[in-house]
Amino acid sequence: MTIHPLFWLVPIASVVALAAAFTFFKLMLKADEGTPRMREIAQHVRVGAMAYLKQQYKVVLIVFIVLAIVFSFMAYVLKVQNPWVPFAFLTGGFFSGLAGFFGMKTATYASGRTANAARKSLDGGLKIAFRSGAVMGLTVVGLGLLDIAVWFLILNHFYAGEAKALIIITTTMLTFGMGASTQALFARVGGGIYTKAADVGADIVGKVEQDIPEDDPRNPATIADNVGDNVGDVAGMGADLYESYCGSILSTAALGATAFALQPDMQMRAVLAPMLIAAVGIFLSLIGIFLVRTKEGATMRDLLKSLALGTNVSAVLIAIATFGILYGLGLDNWLGLSFSVISGLLAGVIIGQATEYYTSHSYKPTQDISKAGLTGSATVIIKGIGTGMISTCIPVITICVAILMSYLCANGFVLDMTQPGAISQGLYGIGIAAVGMLSTLGITLATDAYGPIADNAGGNAEMSELGEEVRHRTDALDALGNTTAATGKGFAIGSAALTALALLASYIEEVKIAKPELADLSIPEFMDQFQVNLMNPRVLVGAFIGAMAAFLFCGLTMEAVGRAAQDMVQEVRDQFKRIAGILEGKATPDYRRCVEISTRAAQREMIVPSVLAILIPIVTGLILGVPGVLGLLVGGLCAGFTLAVFMANAGGAWDNAKKNVEEGNFGGKGSFAHKATIVGDTVGDPFKDTSGPSLNILIKLMSMVSVVMAGLTVAYHLL
Amino acid sequence: MTIHPLFWLVPIASVVALAAAFTFFKLMLKADEGTPRMREIAQHVRVGAMAYLKQQYKVVLIVFIVLAIVFSFMAYVLKVQNPWVPFAFLTGGFFSGLAGFFGMKTATYASGRTANAARKSLDGGLKIAFRSGAVMGLTVVGLGLLDIAVWFLILNHFYAGEAKALIIITTTMLTFGMGASTQALFARVGGGIYTKAADVGADIVGKVEQDIPEDDPRNPATIADNVGDNVGDVAGMGADLYESYCGSILSTAALGATAFALQPDMQMRAVLAPMLIAAVGIFLSLIGIFLVRTKEGATMRDLLKSLALGTNVSAVLIAIATFGILYGLGLDNWLGLSFSVISGLLAGVIIGQATEYYTSHSYKPTQDISKAGLTGSATVIIKGIGTGMISTCIPVITICVAILMSYLCANGFVLDMTQPGAISQGLYGIGIAAVGMLSTLGITLATDAYGPIADNAGGNAEMSELGEEVRHRTDALDALGNTTAATGKGFAIGSAALTALALLASYIEEVKIAKPELADLSIPEFMDQFQVNLMNPRVLVGAFIGAMAAFLFCGLTMEAVGRAAQDMVQEVRDQFKRIAGILEGKATPDYRRCVEISTRAAQREMIVPSVLAILIPIVTGLILGVPGVLGLLVGGLCAGFTLAVFMANAGGAWDNAKKNVEEGNFGGKGSFAHKATIVGDTVGDPFKDTSGPSLNILIKLMSMVSVVMAGLTVAYHLL
Repeated sequence: MTIHPLFWLVPIASVVALAAAFTFFKLMLKADEGTPRMREIAQHVRVGAMAYLKQQYKVVLIVFIVLAIVFSFMAYVLKVQNPWVPFAFLTGGFFSGLAGFFGMKTATYASGRTANAARKSLDGGLKIAFRSGAVMGLTVVGLGLLDIAVWFLILNHFYAGEAKALIIITTTMLTFGMGASTQALFARVGGGIYTKAADVGADIVGKVEQDIPEDDPRNPATIADNVGDNVGDVAGMGADLYESYCGSILSTAALGATAFALQPDMQMRAVLAPMLIAAVGIFLSLIGIFLVRTKEGATMRDLLKSLALGTNVSAVLIAIATFGILYGLGLDNWLGLSFSVISGLLAGVIIGQATEYYTSHSYKPTQDISKAGLTGSATVIIKGIGTGMISTCIPVITICVAILMSYLCANGFVLDMTQPGAISQGLYGIGIAAVGMLSTLGITLATDAYGPIADNAGGNAEMSELGEEVRHRTDALDALGNTTAATGKGFAIGSAALTALALLASYIEEVKIAKPELADLSIPEFMDQFQVNLMNPRVLVGAFIGAMAAFLFCGLTMEAVGRAAQDMVQEVRDQFKRIAGILEGKATPDYRRCVEISTRAAQREMIVPSVLAILIPIVTGLILGVPGVLGLLVGGLCAGFTLAVFMANAGGAWDNAKKNVEEGNFGGKGSFAHKATIVGDTVGDPFKDTSGPSLNILIKLMSMVSVVMAGLTVAYHLL
Repeated sequence: MTIHPLFWLVPIASVVALAAAFTFFKLMLKADEGTPRMREIAQHVRVGAMAYLKQQYKVVLIVFIVLAIVFSFMAYVLKVQNPWVPFAFLTGGFFSGLAGFFGMKTATYASGRTANAARKSLDGGLKIAFRSGAVMGLTVVGLGLLDIAVWFLILNHFYAGEAKALIIITTTMLTFGMGASTQALFARVGGGIYTKAADVGADIVGKVEQDIPEDDPRNPATIADNVGDNVGDVAGMGADLYESYCGSILSTAALGATAFALQPDMQMRAVLAPMLIAAVGIFLSLIGIFLVRTKEGATMRDLLKSLALGTNVSAVLIAIATFGILYGLGLDNWLGLSFSVISGLLAGVIIGQATEYYTSHSYKPTQDISKAGLTGSATVIIKGIGTGMISTCIPVITICVAILMSYLCANGFVLDMTQPGAISQGLYGIGIAAVGMLSTLGITLATDAYGPIADNAGGNAEMSELGEEVRHRTDALDALGNTTAATGKGFAIGSAALTALALLASYIEEVKIAKPELADLSIPEFMDQFQVNLMNPRVLVGAFIGAMAAFLFCGLTMEAVGRAAQDMVQEVRDQFKRIAGILEGKATPDYRRCVEISTRAAQREMIVPSVLAILIPIVTGLILGVPGVLGLLVGGLCAGFTLAVFMANAGGAWDNAKKNVEEGNFGGKGSFAHKATIVGDTVGDPFKDTSGPSLNILIKLMSMVSVVMAGLTVAYHLL
């Protein structure tokens, strides 16, 4: 098939992104890393983080090899998959891991330099941290689009002549999405357990029992805690968003291929549209990144404005550009689809604002949690859980409105499903809304990733004993990151829900490929054929299992953190007893053992939940067939999305409720309320950094697995 | 229509149950209430509880009047409901309230007498507490069947001649179920907030801050706490289980009317079957109740055996009797349906066992939570949440198997939905499984309700300063209740899920009544007509909102408890400062103010969540129409059920983890681990006694509201 000339924008954008990332990386490396003590600590963290990542990749490699063998068996022996699947799967996992690796490498070089720059000015610190965050953002989008472009070219070369070429190409490429999701889940879960075991352990003994500040060099878990920020919040987040980014583009491309299957002139354009929106988004993100500048002596408010300016300009530009891209591509319904993208973007902004409202201590909900500290830790927990649960309301309603709007805009406002093409085109609208949300990932991820860099810079400053003022500046940078990150989270979580919906349609398509006699069924006919209606007990049972899977997964990751943290607490307490003079600063604690405990715990604990996430949809499919799988995915999506918002927001609110007290409210540092809110913060750690964000990936991974395994479960199922 | 002669067993059973309840009540009243101090305290609690209940009924009355006006408008002006609906609704509410009232009256008279009997022997205490629990159990089932029998006779008198008489009769009777659900929700939410505000407040200041024991008369919140047990755990539970009992019978009867609509000779029998199973269950429960006897000097193990003997014998007898009843009724598929009942009963037992495993400190999960106390309250909370989430796995899978089994047994193992009648008869099987689960409610509720009576007896003993030994005995009684209650909870929660599923089918039937042109559609045709498939955005949006509704509702009730508890803590702290000599036992605290605080808080806080539960399905229906409502109910059911299990089990596990420490493990009373587990217990209070149990009602109430409002939302909806 002749490739539309605009396609070439995609590889160009990816190369530009990677080149820009490389440039920023080189510029950052030129900055001074500070005093010998600072270098030494940065080196410790760097070595620990790299050692962990290597260890993790080894475990994940085994999982990938096993799965690749399974896929090869399915492709070459059972013939229920096409021959490219194992390779696409492996590259997805490889690139997702690479994105995390590059991000982490950058972060571990940047945080010491950020601390050093913050010795001179707030502004200097911001520049290094933000530019390093941008390295991560640009690497993720660059690698993502590169992978997509290369696979598209390869598959197009081999399938170009066949009927339904684009459907086969796009569904095959989804396997590479599954690879990315699998890698991302391990990265989030493993990294999340690592970082929170260290963090919770360090906080419990350090802050609660011994009254020493965060990141104090006397605390044996400090290095592990800082390593954790890098492996969890940076490498984990990188793999996660690589997965989200590729997942949304790939699932929308697959939807485009089927929605416009009967209009060959439109089909290629519909497949390319999400890639092009993403490609243009890279250029617009770069503009945004260059807009983030500050003058000497800038205040906190100036910095915030400058960051917000960058992201907002990018978002507005992409909204405008979408009309141009879709018009330029010559899509029939370019206007409606553009409004689908706008409704996705707006939903992202609203979810971000709601996140901000429920988790920032500038607003009542979090302030009330701080206030609950006056009556002890139990009321802090009760209040936080209540707030988190209530906070699901706005995001869910927003997503619901976005689903309806993007669906209706894309299909000419037809709600009647019996109209030919109404559903597929509507679903394509939902998918492209998700792509719109993530199109400015280059810059939103920059503002997100710079948070942990600033956090680590603070750790470095504290451990190098750089003094109150530097620590103040790094804290300010960190707080700034928290604020802008709320918007980023809105986009990430919103796009996850929309992408998962789009993947439902891909699943149906994959079933049709597996059963060629059904190829010409419309979606309502398909649903009728498989009896996928809400009174089918297989659908209902699937939905129950989907909801349960979300809870089970969260429970397993929570328990993992709890267990690992207990080990850490025991070790830290032990060291205080065993090594005389630690608390007086006369002896050096044994940092290495704490790093080892976190590493071992993460390795041990990440297996079960991650493997379950892969097995549940397969087993459900093998027992309940197509209706059961669709029930599972819908149940998992609805319950999982709500649970993810609850956990992320409760955790965020507890974190800031503690900060609020530390700023001198309700008694300030060291008060009764402070101790109570520290308990809340500690409980919130795995909520917001382990279980919550992993759920976003879980939802999509279960869909991806179902899509890839469709051939198998259609051929063999019990009921 | 001639009523089948076996029907008359139903009113007879209900009269027998009420007579037995009255006899037990009179017998209990004859027992001695003990010392003047004991009488005085019992009187305080009695007055406080009755005052609260009156207050609550006043508020609920307003809600009922408003809803009755709405229904009258729908019935007499819009003509989208039949004329009996407002009255059926009101009687359902009235009887549900009555069941709670009688239960509470009995409990408040019984607890002092239980304490007094426990002064002499453990056995004497058990007898009074258990017989009083039986009053509640028998009152609930007696009033339930009475209401059902009377309404059935009235409606049959008026509609007997009409075509589809039984369908109209049974769906009208569902409105009485909605009345019961509405009353139950208010009772559970209001009572739950009352009791936990007092309990949490009393614990935080008493146990954590001042180190005084539970129920110590020096604690100003003690009376409020004891009143709370009565209004929450007794009156709330009574209304709750009245609702479950009637809901399962009524929804199954309605399913029977539609599933056998084409076989007039079977239809009446299918409608009567659930009522008859319930009626026979009453006689068998009475046998079980009389089996609970103990000899003088019985050990704890003997008592447990005796209680278990009673419930197990009843359960086995009902399993056997079911074959007889269904055969005697002459139902074609009596054998298959009997196996549906068995699968329901087995599911209840398994869920009960799983509950026991995850919440009893004889097993590892709860022991691990106690152990987490060694590293502080944060790890206790993390571990408890993890355990609670993981504990959803077995109940959900059990319910899934029960759904499939009871469905398949009832429809001759036909999974193909296009077979005529396959779905309706399968759903009827699911409904009758729920009825089977609840058929021995007379005795299971007795073992459930005697828990709070024993708890209050302990309170009375402590406040009357009866000495260590009596308190020990009442504690033993309480602990015994916790163990047997696990099974009861399994049946209650399992039946809620199955009943809610059955109500989905009733909703479809009600839609057909509202649109007579659809009357002859089979369920798959109906689903096709309304496009109720999983790719319809209205279904998906509905499912999202359903899942969110469950979280929102929990969040609101959690926050309510948190806020009320904070008020209580402030008041108790204040009293310790304001009234000199309280802590030395030289001055009497102002109990009345604490009672007032709980009362006001419960009144204020119960409105929003309860009204939301009624409004959400109506608004969803008015916007999204039939597919949206079905999506809402399924999403709410799957997420709500899982969330309910999580909250109930996490709360139960925290409670027993604390008891485990108090028994001398991990440092015992007063240790660091004890303080940490008290925080867990306090957080768990609203989990297990407010939000968790209310969710069971929420799931069914949303379905009931949808059923009753179907006429309106079919006629008027936006999309």
